[in-house]
Amino acid sequence: MHKQRVVIVGGGFGGLNAAQALRRVPVDVTLVDRRNFHLFQPLLYQVATGGLSPSNIAVPLRSIVRKQKNCRVLMAEVVDFDLQRRVLKLANDELPYDSLIVAAGAQTGYFGRTDWAGVAPGLKSIEDALEIRRRVLTTFEAAEQELDPARRAAMLTFVVIGGGPTGVELAGTLAEITRHTLRQEFRRCKPEDARIILVDVSDRVLNAFPPDMSESARKHLQAIQVEVRTGTRVVNLDERHVELQTQDVREVIEAETVLWAAGVDASPLGARLIQAAKCEAGRGGRVPVGPELHVAGFPDVFVIGDLAAAVGLDGKPLPGVAPVAIQQGKYVAGVIQARLNNQPIVPFRYHDYGNMATIGRSAAVAQLGSWKFRGRIAWLLWLFIHLIQIVRFENRLLVLIQWAWNYLTFNRSARLITDVGRGKPPGPHPSNPS
Amino acid sequence: MHKQRVVIVGGGFGGLNAAQALRRVPVDVTLVDRRNFHLFQPLLYQVATGGLSPSNIAVPLRSIVRKQKNCRVLMAEVVDFDLQRRVLKLANDELPYDSLIVAAGAQTGYFGRTDWAGVAPGLKSIEDALEIRRRVLTTFEAAEQELDPARRAAMLTFVVIGGGPTGVELAGTLAEITRHTLRQEFRRCKPEDARIILVDVSDRVLNAFPPDMSESARKHLQAIQVEVRTGTRVVNLDERHVELQTQDVREVIEAETVLWAAGVDASPLGARLIQAAKCEAGRGGRVPVGPELHVAGFPDVFVIGDLAAAVGLDGKPLPGVAPVAIQQGKYVAGVIQARLNNQPIVPFRYHDYGNMATIGRSAAVAQLGSWKFRGRIAWLLWLFIHLIQIVRFENRLLVLIQWAWNYLTFNRSARLITDVGRGKPPGPHPSNPS
Repeated sequence: MHKQRVVIVGGGFGGLNAAQALRRVPVDVTLVDRRNFHLFQPLLYQVATGGLSPSNIAVPLRSIVRKQKNCRVLMAEVVDFDLQRRVLKLANDELPYDSLIVAAGAQTGYFGRTDWAGVAPGLKSIEDALEIRRRVLTTFEAAEQELDPARRAAMLTFVVIGGGPTGVELAGTLAEITRHTLRQEFRRCKPEDARIILVDVSDRVLNAFPPDMSESARKHLQAIQVEVRTGTRVVNLDERHVELQTQDVREVIEAETVLWAAGVDASPLGARLIQAAKCEAGRGGRVPVGPELHVAGFPDVFVIGDLAAAVGLDGKPLPGVAPVAIQQGKYVAGVIQARLNNQPIVPFRYHDYGNMATIGRSAAVAQLGSWKFRGRIAWLLWLFIHLIQIVRFENRLLVLIQWAWNYLTFNRSARLITDVGRGKPPGPHPSNPS
Repeated sequence: MHKQRVVIVGGGFGGLNAAQALRRVPVDVTLVDRRNFHLFQPLLYQVATGGLSPSNIAVPLRSIVRKQKNCRVLMAEVVDFDLQRRVLKLANDELPYDSLIVAAGAQTGYFGRTDWAGVAPGLKSIEDALEIRRRVLTTFEAAEQELDPARRAAMLTFVVIGGGPTGVELAGTLAEITRHTLRQEFRRCKPEDARIILVDVSDRVLNAFPPDMSESARKHLQAIQVEVRTGTRVVNLDERHVELQTQDVREVIEAETVLWAAGVDASPLGARLIQAAKCEAGRGGRVPVGPELHVAGFPDVFVIGDLAAAVGLDGKPLPGVAPVAIQQGKYVAGVIQARLNNQPIVPFRYHDYGNMATIGRSAAVAQLGSWKFRGRIAWLLWLFIHLIQIVRFENRLLVLIQWAWNYLTFNRSARLITDVGRGKPPGPHPSNPS
């Protein structure tokens, strides 16, 4: 009799942790991803702002599981599911499974305004991060050559849509770059005069945090000259303008760089799976799962991480954060092992250890259980916790050195304008790369 | 009276050294480049083979000259020269000069077979390096999924055209990756069985070195299982085959990854300048210059580095290497200063301190004056000399740590398959990315 075949779709936090937790379980694991690396998404904003290189936060999947004999990696695009035949459909192939773990994650969502994608890039992939880096840096180059002061001011206006951790981190880092890193590097344009606007539709930034932490974050953002616009929604976007609405008041801002950190939708694989399982889509196209994280009617098909519409024991939806995905990955591995051993299965329970976000140089907010930290201590905590979570010692060391260097010198060395394929190649007046 | 305006085209070794050597000279320097960074080209093969990240070897030009008050950086594409009006033509602008230093460098040359460019990428830019990295890594992923052993063998056949330092370094590093780094990472394909063929038309590799050093290099390459084919030319290339000719014998090799390190042509700006100056093109489209490195008839228009067809005092053409460009950059800065002070000018004299190339792990050849080194000592010398030449202390430190790590663990962490725009996005069967 062959060993049970466990197929995992996606090598993010959920899928990778599931694969690793199956290390000593007598099953054959196949980890399928269309990319060849695991990405440490929480630091993607550092790549977008030139503080880290892609390889600092992305590690080849093969390299991570090379010693795990029961795991093979397959770089392939999944196109569909056949739950009746228990087969995963790849572009040119089929992959049979006994247990399937779908951890395909989420992508930037524009609330139906897909036409905004070209104007305001999101931050979910290495390519996204390099595209944002290219746009931000190219904007300063174009501003340096612009003679019209009004146009130059528009070029130096950055709007970040979405006041969650990613939006706050992007806005805070942009403030740091413009006020410190790029100072003195330009002769005509003054990066330190750049206007940075952070927009959120709710009444406070970081609204997953307690209100007093949001207030700390807002104060710190304002101290580093980020304009915080809460209770504000975007009603229109084009390559030169952002139209905002606060209550009944509309305002058009001339801005040429808009970054999108406002929402995520489930991976398109969610829709395929929902169709195959004949269930109803959850919020943002997520796949509804029961307390054991499998799809209704298909006990061998698990969905975890950002793709899953899972609810906590209190009935509230679980947030789309790395700790949820990691715990779900380990849990599902445990379910598979328990079934092999005919052991009982308890429902998934999310242990929420807290929440943290950096705001910029030396500042962060962190809430760990009932403990709250802010300012420098929260920032050091943030650094420490992110460093130990990075998957490989080498990367931890290099990120630590790079951060120490960036901190001491105010410099950010990964400020290269390279062609990442989506935008135009660098040219003399590339201020409208759509 | 305004200060003399020195305009420098190109921020490579020649242009950057010219700009920096003008630091204390009372002139206004404008450094024009279409990229925003200086690239340490000698280590580009390390990026192509996943050993280093782009930002390890590329440093923003603005950051390098930020403290040099008399120098501004302009990121712009130069389109033509008007030598009569003393104006540099940019895409949307004009830039007047009193002295012009053209250091636009070279690009991969295919001896007229431009159709080969898509099949066999060269290695002159960050994008080239990332494209080579993507192709090499994607090939192993495709081979892992290939069931036909013959086809898999073709996928695992790598042909490097050109046996100069770049070709030797690429072939040596490919041997290291396949025999060490990727071992155990694949379940079906065996990277250690990969076939690596190094082709050169002359009768020995590294033909700028003394014959006995070439022989050492050949022996070492063969020891790490690189097939060295000297006296061999490429007569045909397509996405699946390379046709080689040695004397009268032709052979078709099934190979899906071909890398081009065989030749360079002058930047297309050379042709514009030749036309503007009404002179005759030198070898490979280079611009002929006299003993003071200016174009005949235009004493204020200097050409340096790979773009210049300069000859040594012995009448032989100077090689297209970094030390020539660096010395020429400093020399031309000296000429400009001497003219300001009405001092006499001596012809350019190239000081050849030697030549070195690595072959792989712990092996290199180095010739410094009449001293010759090979093996581990040459390799340590190579490491040391390249490290101290890297432009910024931070980069030196990070490259040193990364190298130490790569050496000790046999690992190479920058093995990411990302979309660099020229190829197809990563997909399931990307074995023919043209």
